[in-house]
Amino acid sequence: MPEFLQLENPTLALERFLEKISLPNLGNDRIPTTEAVGRVIAAAVLSPESSPAFSRSTVDGFAVRARDTFGASEGIPVYLSSLGELRMGKKPAVTIEKGKTIGIHTGGMLPDGSDAVVMVENIQVLPNGEIEITKSVSPGENMIREGEDVKLGEEIIPAGRLLRPVEIGGLLAVGITVVEVRKQPRVGILSSGDELVDPRINPKPGQVRDINSSMIASLISRNGGVPVTYELMPDDPINIQESLQKAFRECNALVITAGSSTSTRDFTSQAILKLGSPGILNHGLNIKPGKPTILAVCDGKPVIGLPGNPVSALVIATLFVIPMIMKIAGVKDLISPEKGRAKLAINLPSLAGREDYWPIKIEEKDGEIIANPIFYKSNLIFSLVNANALAIVPAEVNGLAAGESIEYFRLM
Amino acid sequence: MPEFLQLENPTLALERFLEKISLPNLGNDRIPTTEAVGRVIAAAVLSPESSPAFSRSTVDGFAVRARDTFGASEGIPVYLSSLGELRMGKKPAVTIEKGKTIGIHTGGMLPDGSDAVVMVENIQVLPNGEIEITKSVSPGENMIREGEDVKLGEEIIPAGRLLRPVEIGGLLAVGITVVEVRKQPRVGILSSGDELVDPRINPKPGQVRDINSSMIASLISRNGGVPVTYELMPDDPINIQESLQKAFRECNALVITAGSSTSTRDFTSQAILKLGSPGILNHGLNIKPGKPTILAVCDGKPVIGLPGNPVSALVIATLFVIPMIMKIAGVKDLISPEKGRAKLAINLPSLAGREDYWPIKIEEKDGEIIANPIFYKSNLIFSLVNANALAIVPAEVNGLAAGESIEYFRLM
Repeated sequence: MPEFLQLENPTLALERFLEKISLPNLGNDRIPTTEAVGRVIAAAVLSPESSPAFSRSTVDGFAVRARDTFGASEGIPVYLSSLGELRMGKKPAVTIEKGKTIGIHTGGMLPDGSDAVVMVENIQVLPNGEIEITKSVSPGENMIREGEDVKLGEEIIPAGRLLRPVEIGGLLAVGITVVEVRKQPRVGILSSGDELVDPRINPKPGQVRDINSSMIASLISRNGGVPVTYELMPDDPINIQESLQKAFRECNALVITAGSSTSTRDFTSQAILKLGSPGILNHGLNIKPGKPTILAVCDGKPVIGLPGNPVSALVIATLFVIPMIMKIAGVKDLISPEKGRAKLAINLPSLAGREDYWPIKIEEKDGEIIANPIFYKSNLIFSLVNANALAIVPAEVNGLAAGESIEYFRLM
Repeated sequence: MPEFLQLENPTLALERFLEKISLPNLGNDRIPTTEAVGRVIAAAVLSPESSPAFSRSTVDGFAVRARDTFGASEGIPVYLSSLGELRMGKKPAVTIEKGKTIGIHTGGMLPDGSDAVVMVENIQVLPNGEIEITKSVSPGENMIREGEDVKLGEEIIPAGRLLRPVEIGGLLAVGITVVEVRKQPRVGILSSGDELVDPRINPKPGQVRDINSSMIASLISRNGGVPVTYELMPDDPINIQESLQKAFRECNALVITAGSSTSTRDFTSQAILKLGSPGILNHGLNIKPGKPTILAVCDGKPVIGLPGNPVSALVIATLFVIPMIMKIAGVKDLISPEKGRAKLAINLPSLAGREDYWPIKIEEKDGEIIANPIFYKSNLIFSLVNANALAIVPAEVNGLAAGESIEYFRLM
């Protein structure tokens, strides 16, 4: 029987490894919302106000009482008397009474009495100042109602969300300018092996520069962890044991890149066994490259032993170290995918002749990548908070059907 | 004819926009290699040395003259006399002569005279100290030759590469501890509109918080730019003109989020026209959301006018602002994809029963996403420098055929 049949499947090993890790008590930082991208929100955020704070027009046009326009058409227009034009950024001083209207810009606050907006394309200003309306509107048309995006007290960001620019926008939209985020986890990096030297030192024959420590440190800091690099350990069981114990006390996780000799690898796994229980979950994985990987959880703290070979070390770090950081950082959400194809969960309507970008939520389900469209109304920033990608509906199609493969890319 | 048929296709518009942008003369920073992740390398890097610097074993075993093992098998073993075991990190003091061998660890330097390594699995140490070899090796087997990864003077990083952890590792492997990277481009952010107030200020009725500036600033800094946020511009043509001109002088690119009223939008486009030629390339795109987008290049400098509505602003920023930053930052490489599916360019061999992760280069070709496998030898870090993703070959298959769809994810 080939050896790899006795080694565990890497996907199952990762799942089991993540399950056994306890969430460390990192404590929180209170920081300006504008600096919180890439941080993890500590607790669910409830909205301190309704958004939008007032009913707003979504078009350039005329604010009306919708019932005043009922029946209006090209053939039989309706005529309303104009009160002029509203200024942006001010509460309208007028009330729209029967037969009256007033000019309004996109984003402008609707005056009392009005309940819809007629688009500028559907009116004509007559020489006597009257407004001729050639298309009726229903109540609520071409406007967003107060609180339509989010209501006072509604949860706007779930606990454990990794903040992206869209969440920053959403938080600021309701006036939250300071947020509580989890402190970033400290990940200790240890390397051992008599052949390794610091990369700044010129290696003698037989020696090699330790590149794994720096490579893994940059990967950790790019993914929300604080790398803590310890001195190179000489290949000695007592020294390795002491270094590991010190780092284990000081950090929330350890990544060990053992030297490539058999003795170093043995010393390392013996030292891990003494850190806590249950200890080593996997010693060797059914994976290439990276077979000699060690996955351990000691008293709830994760410890990963990377292969010494840098190619394997980087592949295994990508597969195991990044999800481990997300877990101890308290991230509870799917990380946004960057680009790819997914299966559409439901029909997606679209006008042919125009490229449409639909906010979607990408999820993995039974091994398939599924795109769930999020239906939204222009201007409602919180609809995007649930999206992690944008689906592309090409100009030449008239919508897409459920089950079709669509292209998507990351929503920043 | 519907209006969108007169508007330009966003993909073509982006291409034309990027083409017209001149690479700004940003100047360079000299920084430690360990801090260079996410930065753009200024010039092609040539290797100051060969790597590996000496021939190394890739297994635990015994260093031999390959021809001494020829014909060895389980039935007719070969017997060599052992010189003991090599220490890691030291140049071997011995020379392997005919009939001799010596124990060697993975990563150990091959002694003079030897040209292959027999794996420990294929030997037996006899009571008299002789080594019984039951499998022959050919010259070069189970070892990496000096300079096999990279030769002295060979280009290891192309100019314009956005540095990832793998490039950091590669640079350090050949002793490059300081690198020259391009300075990060300054991207000015301007917002106008009488209804907008700073998010720290409580809006009065009719006013809304300006969230676009902060949302776009966080997106810019996450993607390698330095956001420079200017004060909110009141809705006045002279003021908008002056603010734009000042920001245009001080930055390498501008992103303007105009207020939503018609007059602000008009003032903004008039002000852009005066910044330089050719000026506005697109005023409106055949896209939803984001139709009112402005794309301009003024004397080689890019200027993007985002729609005022935050949903549209974020979608358009994702589609246009990020590639614009990459262009002016001098990035000449495809950004790594995170996860998705691609079409395999050639057959990929694999052993059934083990999950294989192959380094691949993902490219878009005629609208299809193609995965080009990179063949590599364990330990050769520079083979990974050409990869941007890892393809997953599931355990249950015996290789994959060209044209098959494979799953991949980002190589950090």
